[in-house]
Amino acid sequence: MITVIHGPNLNMLGKREPDIYGTQTLDDINQALTQRAESLGHTVDCFQSNAEGEIVDKIQAAGEASKALLINPGALSHYSIAIRDAIANLDIPVVEVHLSNIHQREAFRHHSVISEVVEGVICGLGQDSYLLGLDALTRLLG
Amino acid sequence: MITVIHGPNLNMLGKREPDIYGTQTLDDINQALTQRAESLGHTVDCFQSNAEGEIVDKIQAAGEASKALLINPGALSHYSIAIRDAIANLDIPVVEVHLSNIHQREAFRHHSVISEVVEGVICGLGQDSYLLGLDALTRLLG
Amino acid sequence: MITVIHGPNLNMLGKREPDIYGTQTLDDINQALTQRAESLGHTVDCFQSNAEGEIVDKIQAAGEASKALLINPGALSHYSIAIRDAIANLDIPVVEVHLSNIHQREAFRHHSVISEVVEGVICGLGQDSYLLGLDALTRLLG
Amino acid sequence: MITVIHGPNLNMLGKREPDIYGTQTLDDINQALTQRAESLGHTVDCFQSNAEGEIVDKIQAAGEASKALLINPGALSHYSIAIRDAIANLDIPVVEVHLSNIHQREAFRHHSVISEVVEGVICGLGQDSYLLGLDALTRLLG
Amino acid sequence: MITVIHGPNLNMLGKREPDIYGTQTLDDINQALTQRAESLGHTVDCFQSNAEGEIVDKIQAAGEASKALLINPGALSHYSIAIRDAIANLDIPVVEVHLSNIHQREAFRHHSVISEVVEGVICGLGQDSYLLGLDALTRLLG
Amino acid sequence: MITVIHGPNLNMLGKREPDIYGTQTLDDINQALTQRAESLGHTVDCFQSNAEGEIVDKIQAAGEASKALLINPGALSHYSIAIRDAIANLDIPVVEVHLSNIHQREAFRHHSVISEVVEGVICGLGQDSYLLGLDALTRLLG
Amino acid sequence: MITVIHGPNLNMLGKREPDIYGTQTLDDINQALTQRAESLGHTVDCFQSNAEGEIVDKIQAAGEASKALLINPGALSHYSIAIRDAIANLDIPVVEVHLSNIHQREAFRHHSVISEVVEGVICGLGQDSYLLGLDALTRLLG
Amino acid sequence: MITVIHGPNLNMLGKREPDIYGTQTLDDINQALTQRAESLGHTVDCFQSNAEGEIVDKIQAAGEASKALLINPGALSHYSIAIRDAIANLDIPVVEVHLSNIHQREAFRHHSVISEVVEGVICGLGQDSYLLGLDALTRLLG
Amino acid sequence: MITVIHGPNLNMLGKREPDIYGTQTLDDINQALTQRAESLGHTVDCFQSNAEGEIVDKIQAAGEASKALLINPGALSHYSIAIRDAIANLDIPVVEVHLSNIHQREAFRHHSVISEVVEGVICGLGQDSYLLGLDALTRLLG
Amino acid sequence: MITVIHGPNLNMLGKREPDIYGTQTLDDINQALTQRAESLGHTVDCFQSNAEGEIVDKIQAAGEASKALLINPGALSHYSIAIRDAIANLDIPVVEVHLSNIHQREAFRHHSVISEVVEGVICGLGQDSYLLGLDALTRLLG
Amino acid sequence: MITVIHGPNLNMLGKREPDIYGTQTLDDINQALTQRAESLGHTVDCFQSNAEGEIVDKIQAAGEASKALLINPGALSHYSIAIRDAIANLDIPVVEVHLSNIHQREAFRHHSVISEVVEGVICGLGQDSYLLGLDALTRLLG
Amino acid sequence: MITVIHGPNLNMLGKREPDIYGTQTLDDINQALTQRAESLGHTVDCFQSNAEGEIVDKIQAAGEASKALLINPGALSHYSIAIRDAIANLDIPVVEVHLSNIHQREAFRHHSVISEVVEGVICGLGQDSYLLGLDALTRLLG
Repeated sequence: MITVIHGPNLNMLGKREPDIYGTQTLDDINQALTQRAESLGHTVDCFQSNAEGEIVDKIQAAGEASKALLINPGALSHYSIAIRDAIANLDIPVVEVHLSNIHQREAFRHHSVISEVVEGVICGLGQDSYLLGLDALTRLLG
Repeated sequence: MITVIHGPNLNMLGKREPDIYGTQTLDDINQALTQRAESLGHTVDCFQSNAEGEIVDKIQAAGEASKALLINPGALSHYSIAIRDAIANLDIPVVEVHLSNIHQREAFRHHSVISEVVEGVICGLGQDSYLLGLDALTRLLG
Repeated sequence: MITVIHGPNLNMLGKREPDIYGTQTLDDINQALTQRAESLGHTVDCFQSNAEGEIVDKIQAAGEASKALLINPGALSHYSIAIRDAIANLDIPVVEVHLSNIHQREAFRHHSVISEVVEGVICGLGQDSYLLGLDALTRLLG
Repeated sequence: MITVIHGPNLNMLGKREPDIYGTQTLDDINQALTQRAESLGHTVDCFQSNAEGEIVDKIQAAGEASKALLINPGALSHYSIAIRDAIANLDIPVVEVHLSNIHQREAFRHHSVISEVVEGVICGLGQDSYLLGLDALTRLLG
Repeated sequence: MITVIHGPNLNMLGKREPDIYGTQTLDDINQALTQRAESLGHTVDCFQSNAEGEIVDKIQAAGEASKALLINPGALSHYSIAIRDAIANLDIPVVEVHLSNIHQREAFRHHSVISEVVEGVICGLGQDSYLLGLDALTRLLG
Repeated sequence: MITVIHGPNLNMLGKREPDIYGTQTLDDINQALTQRAESLGHTVDCFQSNAEGEIVDKIQAAGEASKALLINPGALSHYSIAIRDAIANLDIPVVEVHLSNIHQREAFRHHSVISEVVEGVICGLGQDSYLLGLDALTRLLG
Repeated sequence: MITVIHGPNLNMLGKREPDIYGTQTLDDINQALTQRAESLGHTVDCFQSNAEGEIVDKIQAAGEASKALLINPGALSHYSIAIRDAIANLDIPVVEVHLSNIHQREAFRHHSVISEVVEGVICGLGQDSYLLGLDALTRLLG
Repeated sequence: MITVIHGPNLNMLGKREPDIYGTQTLDDINQALTQRAESLGHTVDCFQSNAEGEIVDKIQAAGEASKALLINPGALSHYSIAIRDAIANLDIPVVEVHLSNIHQREAFRHHSVISEVVEGVICGLGQDSYLLGLDALTRLLG
Repeated sequence: MITVIHGPNLNMLGKREPDIYGTQTLDDINQALTQRAESLGHTVDCFQSNAEGEIVDKIQAAGEASKALLINPGALSHYSIAIRDAIANLDIPVVEVHLSNIHQREAFRHHSVISEVVEGVICGLGQDSYLLGLDALTRLLG
Repeated sequence: MITVIHGPNLNMLGKREPDIYGTQTLDDINQALTQRAESLGHTVDCFQSNAEGEIVDKIQAAGEASKALLINPGALSHYSIAIRDAIANLDIPVVEVHLSNIHQREAFRHHSVISEVVEGVICGLGQDSYLLGLDALTRLLG
Repeated sequence: MITVIHGPNLNMLGKREPDIYGTQTLDDINQALTQRAESLGHTVDCFQSNAEGEIVDKIQAAGEASKALLINPGALSHYSIAIRDAIANLDIPVVEVHLSNIHQREAFRHHSVISEVVEGVICGLGQDSYLLGLDALTRLLG
Repeated sequence: MITVIHGPNLNMLGKREPDIYGTQTLDDINQALTQRAESLGHTVDCFQSNAEGEIVDKIQAAGEASKALLINPGALSHYSIAIRDAIANLDIPVVEVHLSNIHQREAFRHHSVISEVVEGVICGLGQDSYLLGLDALTRLLG
């Protein structure tokens, strides 16, 4: 199993600033991830929360139950040292993804406190950021 | 309906540093808001939480159910990009209020990451910050 | 009497960048303030100047002759320590207002050197910033 | 009763980066604290959470029910102004502790936004940071 | 008519630090501008003031009465947001000039808050900065 | 055709700091890209240079002759505004890749001046950064 | 003749924040300066203005008519490059004085843009700052 | 002879971001410069390169063979200390020009490391920046 | 033997700013340390100096003769890299203590250049900072 | 008795960079101070040291034996928090003097960590800085 | 063989700012290096280029063919991360030299991005910087 | 005679962090310097102190008695403006040396406040830093 975590406000996807995030909903993305995982011989466990604490809990659980972690920390990317520490504590490979190119947005979004503790980072490719992230994890598990 | 959100520690109002925040409790403020809303032909739905995630949930719900949002993000004003993103996602008018004049306090309180995505900001006027914020929303609703 | 001071370039209101400031003229605002003051049992003395020195003079005069001060320092908000000092010297309540939400504009407009020495700050609500500021002063005058 | 609060990821203690945090589990530490408290004529109420909001709730509860607070805010030390405000609101003595010497780690860990509102800070001494913190509180209550 | 504005201390030209500004007086420059304007089919209206407020007034007047504005804001270049706002409010082309090369002087002179709202900037060429600025405005006027 | 550009020192791959970059040579990567492109119905044109000017030339040429650009700017990522401008000038999709996770290295490597003008960024996944970048471009080309 | 210039808000002396500035009025200080100048064989010409432009005018006039300049620029110390330039243009000795110790006040008052172009600076000694400044000028005049 | 140097990407002029740079090609500009030089009794030697090293070579050659240098360093303005040093080494007058007003673009374009070592700087006037620069050099050559 | 070092001005303890440091003298603290050491089976060698050089000498001597070092570097905490280097050179455990909570004082006191090279840091607990530091060293000595 | 302290390198006065410090020796200054003190009914005790520790000792001694302190901390002005603390601990008036105008020298000399804890600061007036400082202390002693 | 690399503009040596660099030409230095190398039993291969890319090429070649590298990166010292990476990739000893004392020049020259990856740095000693650098490399080669 | 000064903690050489400083003692270095000086026709006077004040004294003495100064200021390099001033006061040549490459260590060691006032700086070459420094001084004495 590969855990997929979506951070705050990603449940609003498709209903929200379509010029930045496109019209896909989170369900669309989760379905695409499920299909792609299957084709790669994996399963995914998708999780979304607006609460930092629940995301930390889920990351800790992934450390017990999953082979890899795919995470879009959303706004928490930029300040949640708690999530950073939870990831640093894992022994499984982790890839961080962002739908939009965070380097084209406000200055405070250019830096993710989490990037330093993951294997790889993919951003700016919409739903493909997730799918390529899943591919990357598969190869890392490879 | 107009949603009113009070951030962390505002439930302690009246029990807490009275030289900064006065002796009113949060119930006093909610009652004053309820009465004033009534006189303006509106109702208010008051909510307090110490948890960023619950506040994000409530903001998302307000986007479905309310005509406007009045928010005092408390300490979260200064770092919660998650709340900022939730508000940026709304189509209803939002006014941010603070009981104290945040510009007279510690330097880290001078900047709110949320102010950039609201219609207006009112601070320093105690309970009146809320009441004037309600007036402002009423006028914005036209 | 309540003194109302408008800083540099506010005399151009209505002729100027309507996407930021709307189409109202300064006369419109002064009239609205006069009417509202009357309904609250006060009078207003409205003053506009492009000159920092004249504004300092007027603030000092308000300290002698007025019960309260409502001020939109315009561009001077961001560097006039002379105006800050003149206000700090007053014993009457002062509210600072801005037509636009200064937090949505250039970074150098996010900070007002004057906010630290006033009772309250209201911004982003157009003409309503002034009217709510007048309400706030009325309540502060008790 | 003395409340003891452990912040995010401290539940993973012993399972996590042993070169930084040692091999003790959180249960080991809680037991040591319980024994030491007893020997000093006190009881301890130990609490761990990965959620900022729950920690704020617990701090507010400690203000009602406890004589003192011993807190290791973990990653939240570096950005949770909500926790800072909750502590500033207390009338009981508070000591902040860290297992590792935060000054030997990444630059962003050198500053705790919480230290300014506690009585004392102890770091770098592993489990002894907690035990000495308990001693300090006992003397402050003395 | 093209308005020409000289900022603070430029009336002392020729009497002042000749190694930086040369020996020409402001009258010399105004005469050279008058002749050159004539040869280009324009007239110039030259104005100098040591007072920011008077310069803002003159810029506003130029917006009514002139086809273009040539301005050397002098020391005010580096802090007068009031002048910046007055210029931003104009619909006529504006060129900013400096006698000296401001990039060769003290660090605080390297940045002009006004440059962002003008069409072009010319510096370091003594009286020729003005004459070339006049040429540039003529071409912009078409 | 999809152009692939490798910046300074990437010709030394495999001979160089293997703990950071692995043991693959640039030829290995180019071969893998060629095979993958073929399987996707594309061809690749691979180019390496230690010279910023030659890379700008190649980017300009890609604008004429290629359908997409895959670029690892190497050290030039951190200061070459000339490369940034060349890419900003293109109408074809561009993906930036890095072998290592630049966020785990020296602070001056955390920021790429180029990221702001590309569609997507992928880092930290070794040769897979390139292969996933090729996949991303293929999908962007539709 | 020695020119004495008092900047913005110094006309309010004695009526203003007595814990910082004492109870003396500006007239008291001017009288003390007149008497002391007499005893030293000089006369003083005292001038106060709230307007930067008028102060620049007065400094320029002092360059023609006075032997020395004693100046307390008040709030303008911290941003008036126009006053700095006017002083730099003088050939007579200049001493800058402050009633309060500006190093004990807000951080933005610690730096005077004017100090770099005067002979000496005296602060923190109340009226004596002026009197000692007059003594210093007398000695500089030889 | 007057050497004219165009930096990286200026060969793309007319094909590139027309809202910033207009529709003229570099050939258009070179032709206009040639004609204007002729009318002023000079010849121009126009040179474009995307390579910093070649530009340094050309500047050194200009020091031997030319009477003056007109340079638009393009993106290299912001970091090429090598070009700065090559210019500082010249005994002939140098004017730096930019087509666009660099102060209206990204913050990193506001500062040119080259401006400190040239006689004058002209920006924001499109092709006229070059023509006025040529005029300025002609006058500097006397 | 455990060496105890007190930095500059600590000899004035009890005579000095009692609201920050309390009324105890340094002799009181040394006596308390002596008694506590005895009860723990150790002896202490207490030393105070106002001279950085003498403190470096003493630290070097402690490296030869002592089992552990307890140090309150006082004002030198914030700039003495010489003391930092002397401590880094030791093979014995070192604990740094401060009487006051340095995080509640001026910003320049928040950072100690020494903390990075000690085992633990204890501050804000008055004399107890020392006693707990002695306890900590005892446990580190095992 | 009034204690006079001269910091590091001031013993070299007259032998050292005469364009900055003049040709007077420290003995000349001490003699001038002695004479002036006598004429004011005081005595002075002059002390020079190159050692921070000895200066702290002397300041502490002045607190016991002197009525006032006149100090030129020399280079130590810019980093000796130990001297700052020693002065903050005194109950007698203190004036800080500098021979040169420190605001006209290197940036690191513009800030004195000591100025915040003295009554007044006088700089730039050569030997007169000392003599006026003595006058100031005499008046402060009343 | 020991490779010697001279960066941009060093070919102008002797023709250029003699007060900073002296009157020696690069040929003079190369000859002195050749002779000194001979006397030490080595040969030198001297290379100069104004192009970063060519210097990177030469460094890579030195890694194959030389026993050591002596480099004066000139202006590129301050921004060429490409050269830094090329050197970091070498297994032979490298010494960086500068003719002038870069710490006495403009602030942007105080930092070399290359110094962190070389064995030693020598500056300020003119031609001797090179000769001593050669000596150092000889000793490092043992 | 050439004075050699070793700063704080260099007396511990050989006993201290051998991975940074090697196993040589200070006596070894002094002996090597003595022999090399002899071979160059000079004598050396070697001095070590942990006290800034004693080092300032020694530098002043060197100004009287020595032909040149070779100094390794150790930790004091980074903050002792007193030592900087003492050296600036000398008329003899001075070379600053460091055993380790300070650019490879903590950021606060990258800048020496002393380098600006010496002839040359040599670092990173262990004992050879000293010997080459002696050679450099000999040539400067030439």
